[in-house]
Amino acid sequence: MAQPFPVAESKSELEEGAVFAPRFDSQGLIGCVVIDVRDGAVLMFAYMNEAALRLTLETGVAHYWSRSRQNLWRKGDTSGQQQKVKEIRTDCDQDVLLLKVEVSGDGGACHTGRRSCFYRRLASGRNGVTLVFDEG
Amino acid sequence: MAQPFPVAESKSELEEGAVFAPRFDSQGLIGCVVIDVRDGAVLMFAYMNEAALRLTLETGVAHYWSRSRQNLWRKGDTSGQQQKVKEIRTDCDQDVLLLKVEVSGDGGACHTGRRSCFYRRLASGRNGVTLVFDEG
Repeated sequence: MAQPFPVAESKSELEEGAVFAPRFDSQGLIGCVVIDVRDGAVLMFAYMNEAALRLTLETGVAHYWSRSRQNLWRKGDTSGQQQKVKEIRTDCDQDVLLLKVEVSGDGGACHTGRRSCFYRRLASGRNGVTLVFDEG
Repeated sequence: MAQPFPVAESKSELEEGAVFAPRFDSQGLIGCVVIDVRDGAVLMFAYMNEAALRLTLETGVAHYWSRSRQNLWRKGDTSGQQQKVKEIRTDCDQDVLLLKVEVSGDGGACHTGRRSCFYRRLASGRNGVTLVFDEG
């Protein structure tokens, strides 16, 4: 068994330390913002549990935890859109990760087939807020 | 009282519809990836509850829900780093938002004074994973 990740002992260690002490939520998950290393475009947002994070670190290929299917998956196993992880960052309080990835296949990340999951923007109009499809 | 946000009636309406039907989690929150409209840099990740989202839509200035303080706050009220919201996007299943913002003040978003909360990257070494400070 791998050692568990360290737990930061203080706010200052958490925010200003060099120890990677990821904070998983009450469901054991940590959120990940995934961007394309080529141009910084935000591709998707997904979750990792501890095992997914370890596998990602060990293999260099993004693994996530699916909340809907309740299982660990290696991104791209069905879609072919694997994500080679070029860099991982943590935020100040270490409860969100930022992944810079190189996407294989057709370069998409969204299960709908689109490059990014954020393919709709909010537009305010007479009838309230609607969604407009564009690549942004 | 404002009308509640609509609830999507099907997966296809949720993912391929023009109805904005944000999905708040069991705590009534929705996650927000916040990027700088100038260059797309990822600045922070925060949460909104329904009231924060409404205020953001109505005023064009970012409001969030603080999970640690358990209150609604207008970003920048103490730091001066207000965020003018230039665009909001939703992801495929409408449980994460992407905000493109223009930051006032010194252009920072992190409570530590840095521009971005993601000021540390993971580095693998002999002693496991450590954090390296850089602006990435």
